[in-house]
Amino acid sequence: MKKNKGMILVYTGNGKGKTTSALGTALRSIGYDWKVCMIQFIKGDWHYGEIESIRLLGSNMELYRMGKGFYHIMGDDQPEEEHRKAAENALEFARKKMLSGQYQLIILDEVLVSVHVKMLEEEALIDFLKDKPHAVHVILTGRGASERIIEYADLVTEMKEIKHPFQKGIPAVKGIDF
Amino acid sequence: MKKNKGMILVYTGNGKGKTTSALGTALRSIGYDWKVCMIQFIKGDWHYGEIESIRLLGSNMELYRMGKGFYHIMGDDQPEEEHRKAAENALEFARKKMLSGQYQLIILDEVLVSVHVKMLEEEALIDFLKDKPHAVHVILTGRGASERIIEYADLVTEMKEIKHPFQKGIPAVKGIDF
Repeated sequence: MKKNKGMILVYTGNGKGKTTSALGTALRSIGYDWKVCMIQFIKGDWHYGEIESIRLLGSNMELYRMGKGFYHIMGDDQPEEEHRKAAENALEFARKKMLSGQYQLIILDEVLVSVHVKMLEEEALIDFLKDKPHAVHVILTGRGASERIIEYADLVTEMKEIKHPFQKGIPAVKGIDF
Repeated sequence: MKKNKGMILVYTGNGKGKTTSALGTALRSIGYDWKVCMIQFIKGDWHYGEIESIRLLGSNMELYRMGKGFYHIMGDDQPEEEHRKAAENALEFARKKMLSGQYQLIILDEVLVSVHVKMLEEEALIDFLKDKPHAVHVILTGRGASERIIEYADLVTEMKEIKHPFQKGIPAVKGIDF
């Protein structure tokens, strides 16, 4: 019997829940004893709780933190060379993992931000997706998914911020926000 | 030092990622060794992978399946009495758990659907939220969050469906969709 086609899922938008949804999907997949590889393109948004929680998932979940930290985009500065290099390396690493045959699910966390701020060429990400083996699932997260990426994906959810506690002056909360 | 205020988080909208985000948040909280109690108001959308994955989280995560299965709303049928009763019991049970002092996070999965289809009174859910102890966090999931619930919440994310694989004729996929 032909295996189900692996899907390309996109979690984008300005609201909370993109990386959280990817983590939830990883948790769910591991419930089926899948192997999951998560590669983090931007390091800034990760804290102790997430790293610890990924340890809870045991050897079925691997996390690689490849990014260089948040690149703050203001005006028309170009990303520095080291940021581009880090993003390209992360994508190359992800491709090897995806092609290794060891994982059912590959998560490229915040990769869409890397593309959005031109740390990574859109074309390079599309090429990566073209290389996807039939049965492997891929999740891309981050704000600013481009039209072409959306066109290429099977499932796209926009996490839209309706209300945010920072509007009410509540600071980020341990265990919930990080 | 005064403890941080526990937040009321709402994941709503027609897109994928609501329950998944709640699961991801649970995973993250357990990374901090919090205790999490998840109460499921509608049973239909849960499968083997999720139940298994929750077992992976060990004794820090409790799951209670209180709902009666999907209530299919068509035309102007009123929910049957047994569905109302099940939803009311689930909320009462959740209140006891919330007030027990044993948990840092209480998840009411699909409770917003129960309210939306009038299985549960909006007022009953608001009363529940009014009883929330200062430091406890509560997550409400489900489509159709009402204006009043949104007003009451601290953080609201709408998961908006931009593209869905069923549009392309791809059936639900094990490990990803369920």
